[in-house]
Amino acid sequence: METLRWENGTLHLLDQTLLPHEVSYLALNDYREVIRAIRRLSVRGAPAIGAAAAYAVVLAAMEAAQGDAEDFAARLQKAAEEIGAARPTAVNLRWAVARQHAVVERLAGEPPEKVVAELVREAAAIFAADVAANRTMGAYGAALLPREARVLTHCNAGALATCGYGTALGVIRAAHAAGKIRMVYADETRPLLQGARLTVFELQQDGIPVTLITDSMAGYLMAKKGLDAVIVGADRIAANGDVANKIGTYSLAVLARHHGVPFYVTAPFSTIDPEAPDGAGIPIEERDADEVTHLGGVPVAPAGTAVWNPAFDVTPHNLVTAIITERGVYYPPYRFGA
Amino acid sequence: METLRWENGTLHLLDQTLLPHEVSYLALNDYREVIRAIRRLSVRGAPAIGAAAAYAVVLAAMEAAQGDAEDFAARLQKAAEEIGAARPTAVNLRWAVARQHAVVERLAGEPPEKVVAELVREAAAIFAADVAANRTMGAYGAALLPREARVLTHCNAGALATCGYGTALGVIRAAHAAGKIRMVYADETRPLLQGARLTVFELQQDGIPVTLITDSMAGYLMAKKGLDAVIVGADRIAANGDVANKIGTYSLAVLARHHGVPFYVTAPFSTIDPEAPDGAGIPIEERDADEVTHLGGVPVAPAGTAVWNPAFDVTPHNLVTAIITERGVYYPPYRFGA
Repeated sequence: METLRWENGTLHLLDQTLLPHEVSYLALNDYREVIRAIRRLSVRGAPAIGAAAAYAVVLAAMEAAQGDAEDFAARLQKAAEEIGAARPTAVNLRWAVARQHAVVERLAGEPPEKVVAELVREAAAIFAADVAANRTMGAYGAALLPREARVLTHCNAGALATCGYGTALGVIRAAHAAGKIRMVYADETRPLLQGARLTVFELQQDGIPVTLITDSMAGYLMAKKGLDAVIVGADRIAANGDVANKIGTYSLAVLARHHGVPFYVTAPFSTIDPEAPDGAGIPIEERDADEVTHLGGVPVAPAGTAVWNPAFDVTPHNLVTAIITERGVYYPPYRFGA
Repeated sequence: METLRWENGTLHLLDQTLLPHEVSYLALNDYREVIRAIRRLSVRGAPAIGAAAAYAVVLAAMEAAQGDAEDFAARLQKAAEEIGAARPTAVNLRWAVARQHAVVERLAGEPPEKVVAELVREAAAIFAADVAANRTMGAYGAALLPREARVLTHCNAGALATCGYGTALGVIRAAHAAGKIRMVYADETRPLLQGARLTVFELQQDGIPVTLITDSMAGYLMAKKGLDAVIVGADRIAANGDVANKIGTYSLAVLARHHGVPFYVTAPFSTIDPEAPDGAGIPIEERDADEVTHLGGVPVAPAGTAVWNPAFDVTPHNLVTAIITERGVYYPPYRFGA
């Protein structure tokens, strides 16, 4: 199942809010629609957001190319800034927009049609490189797991969160292909249930054994059933190895440490933000109370309930056993280089 | 709001599955209906289950009294065993049935009407003693909290889980009355959302400040906002201080230890099971997959999803800062006496 596909000037985006009940694609021709799709989580997962943003810049360039050629670059720049601000935490969004910006800079003065064509090529390159990176990470990560591995993952860091294969689920896919997976436990991942809706769905489709638990069961799972690894993705990694990822990741890291379970983070190198020296420099998005007080539009809490709803948390580097990237596996103390 | 009320031979039981949207009482005249209500969690919370079970024995005795007087005790005994087996983890259920059994033994040979009358009196005594115990625990627990306390609670150990006032929420009520509560954070408590549905509801009604979070946010809450105490109830406490309570309690205890936050358990002395030397001796109920895969009847996971759904977990005594009972506050090493 494709997360996104570019075809004849249209971005086809799998609407992940409808999964697993409905497989439906949005056909987007306006970069503003892509921003809305990112905000409402039709597309989510840091690498997938990055690729969607790269194509959003293409759509913005196509629109800017309709107008006065003189203002092309300025109009495009303004749109690119809007795209880069769609959500605050995942750095891949900003990174993809910056890659497209570099294309525009390189081609300054060239006709808009040529710039558009190059932006399409760059977006496709970002897309293809992401899939390749995931396969590489999968191989690196699978090598770290024992045979008969019982692993726990949180949220969805799968094919659906990327351009294909997945980061954390890429490791699980590669380990399963090598006959090493006994059971994958999937945290349901409240509030938006990406674990229950997306991770279980992906693994079921691939015939990988998966058991769903609520987020509150992870600690007891480790104590009672035993666990060989926690494997998660990342939305942004600071220069010191602090990891911003889906809310609940930090709790898992503490629990893993308490139980002596390795805690692995899997993410493409583009997730590392050299401008954030540590986790304190990573902005954490707080989302609407409705995500917690309602489920599928149905209220589960009394009217007027006050809510704290951070979408992400920060796991300090000292709780992270290793960070798996396409450039290799990093261990503490984390030094990523350029 | 009353959790349960006995009136003219009928047990009126607040149907907690409908809260907070609907306040509705079941009128039960058959002990089998009480068992069903306990199983489907219309009444839940160890002390409330205990009181409901005591009245279920009354209903069973009323039924047994209709038949042959000779078989009265045998028929009642059989029904009491069914009642005691309604759910496995909360020991208060067994304890209340044992208290009623002692009444029947004491009055062996007396006319059934007299036994029924004494069972009603005993059930009322259990009910009244629970409310009094909660107020005592509230005072003991409140004394342990600092001023401007930020506390986190899990599930619902409130008036609704007891015969009134609550255990963990009793401590919070007493602390609030003493002007010591800055904020109560309530874990929503998946799968059945007793935190969102019941705890938020109870605290709102009392004007106590409460903020709802998903279970996965507790760790980040401790790290980011700071917390002064975790306060939970218990379904069974082993002789060594190991605590069985709602699934997710164990994760909170590990997180509290990591962050240096005191972890308090509040429960009436009847929750202590001298026959369970440690937590390994406490049976943990596993409930239907539907509770996790569905929410309000709506599926949130793909069809055929495998689930692990333990309703409780066990927190080892070494993670418990203190156990607050109506007989006083116990500290490690836990020795409860008789």
